Amino acid sequence: MGIREWVVPQDRIFFDLFDKLAETVTQAADLLVTLVENYTDVKTQCHRMKQLEHAGDEITHEIYEQLNRTFITPLEPEEISRLASALDDILDYIDGTAQQMYGYGITETDAAMKELARLIQVSTVEIEAAVKGIRTIKDPKGIEERCIEINRLENVADSVLGHAIMDIFKTQDAVTIIKLKDIYENLELATDKCEDAANILSDIAIRHS
Amino acid sequence: MGIREWVVPQDRIFFDLFDKLAETVTQAADLLVTLVENYTDVKTQCHRMKQLEHAGDEITHEIYEQLNRTFITPLEPEEISRLASALDDILDYIDGTAQQMYGYGITETDAAMKELARLIQVSTVEIEAAVKGIRTIKDPKGIEERCIEINRLENVADSVLGHAIMDIFKTQDAVTIIKLKDIYENLELATDKCEDAANILSDIAIRHS
Amino acid sequence: MGIREWVVPQDRIFFDLFDKLAETVTQAADLLVTLVENYTDVKTQCHRMKQLEHAGDEITHEIYEQLNRTFITPLEPEEISRLASALDDILDYIDGTAQQMYGYGITETDAAMKELARLIQVSTVEIEAAVKGIRTIKDPKGIEERCIEINRLENVADSVLGHAIMDIFKTQDAVTIIKLKDIYENLELATDKCEDAANILSDIAIRHS
Repeated sequence: MGIREWVVPQDRIFFDLFDKLAETVTQAADLLVTLVENYTDVKTQCHRMKQLEHAGDEITHEIYEQLNRTFITPLEPEEISRLASALDDILDYIDGTAQQMYGYGITETDAAMKELARLIQVSTVEIEAAVKGIRTIKDPKGIEERCIEINRLENVADSVLGHAIMDIFKTQDAVTIIKLKDIYENLELATDKCEDAANILSDIAIRHS
Repeated sequence: MGIREWVVPQDRIFFDLFDKLAETVTQAADLLVTLVENYTDVKTQCHRMKQLEHAGDEITHEIYEQLNRTFITPLEPEEISRLASALDDILDYIDGTAQQMYGYGITETDAAMKELARLIQVSTVEIEAAVKGIRTIKDPKGIEERCIEINRLENVADSVLGHAIMDIFKTQDAVTIIKLKDIYENLELATDKCEDAANILSDIAIRHS
Repeated sequence: MGIREWVVPQDRIFFDLFDKLAETVTQAADLLVTLVENYTDVKTQCHRMKQLEHAGDEITHEIYEQLNRTFITPLEPEEISRLASALDDILDYIDGTAQQMYGYGITETDAAMKELARLIQVSTVEIEAAVKGIRTIKDPKGIEERCIEINRLENVADSVLGHAIMDIFKTQDAVTIIKLKDIYENLELATDKCEDAANILSDIAIRHS
């Protein structure tokens, strides 16, 4: 076995795991949109979300295990660990907000939740494409453009959050404010985490191109 | 003086400091359990807690100072700094929640606080044992098992939090919800910080075994 | 062109960018004090604050770009990236709290907000001086003293926060508690972020002296 055959599979393992993790994040975002658009049988939908979150945890754990056991990695160990952690964070916020909706006994979703969920969904599609782009980095410009788009989406989410918060303070009672504020803020934090992942992907694209 | 004598004491300094820091964390967790089980003379108990927090800060600071002044360290500088910061974070959340109980004028503790405090206590005992295990790393399996147990305890704490939050939204007024929610969430965050420390300890055990 | 001429400009770029970023942070802190002391025309003042925050984002982005493109850096890449991120975080919390005051429809500021804003302002002046000191590091003691002072200011802010929180729970309704608590906590977090930046500056001073 030549050194090339020995090295390449190690590379493939990391990229395969990242692809799988990014796909899991997108699936969770899809499920979140379905949940807020079709807010029935919430317990079952939240159970499915939690399963995705566990699946993501396992992939993340596998990335760390590979990292601790592999000498030659296709990216810097620090880059691998930061990217895995950033993707896992997105998943945690998506799942966390879904569980919060159920736990807080929210009975219906509103326009702000739907808008934020859709912004998360579009961001995760960009993230998934950018993650798949780092395997070859033949197109660093393409990765960079996706990262700029994710930054733009985060700014939109920030503005949606600002208006939603202003609205609840005008019209709602204290207990409802507590619940909605947490949910809106956590949805917006999911887009922040997408931005963090985008910044890491952008650094990787620049360094390895 | 041979090089071995010159190198070894440096190693001992770091492990001694980590042992001391982990012991301080366990002491704080013990004090937290005492506080929530025996919620009288809260001001005095919180004062004692703040002293432990300051003691921990000083040990953490000493670890960083040693790190900046030492060329050959027994672990990677990054590992030392991450572990010190993670242990200090556990202490900050334990102390922070105690101060919050006093500051919010909480007059009695409840079942959820007691359960979360005990979960923190058990987690810190595991952390202390795992920290003491990295000095020799003769038993990486033992460290790994403790880390798995800490992860399990964090999941239990997460579930206790979920139920406690559901309960307060069902039965309490807004001001009480604000207070209890903060306290429960910060107690649960202390177990998250234990999990972070466990993950770092697990990485160290794998890399150096 | 000798190697010295080739290397030095790279150094200057990073220090120039850090000076500019630290100055932007101080300007934001000045604006925050003006806002809480003279709480009129809030929308216009918040708009100006947001412009400073965007200016800071651009400088931070430029630091990362330079870092990704430069081989020989005057500080460790990790130090540069941590310091840039810490300074940007201070700015984010200052701006975020200002936007929150406006968004929450706060009609007047109070003694705690003014005290916390002034503590942030004094801290950022120290930060700016310490940042400017790392260019030559002829005076590591001076940087260290500024860092100790920033730590002291953070402790004062923590105590101001504690008392302010105790007061609102005694006298205010739930909706007001939610608003004021968020604003106080975010102001205090700005001083925490100053402390983080100070710790990074202190490490740099020790390592490079």
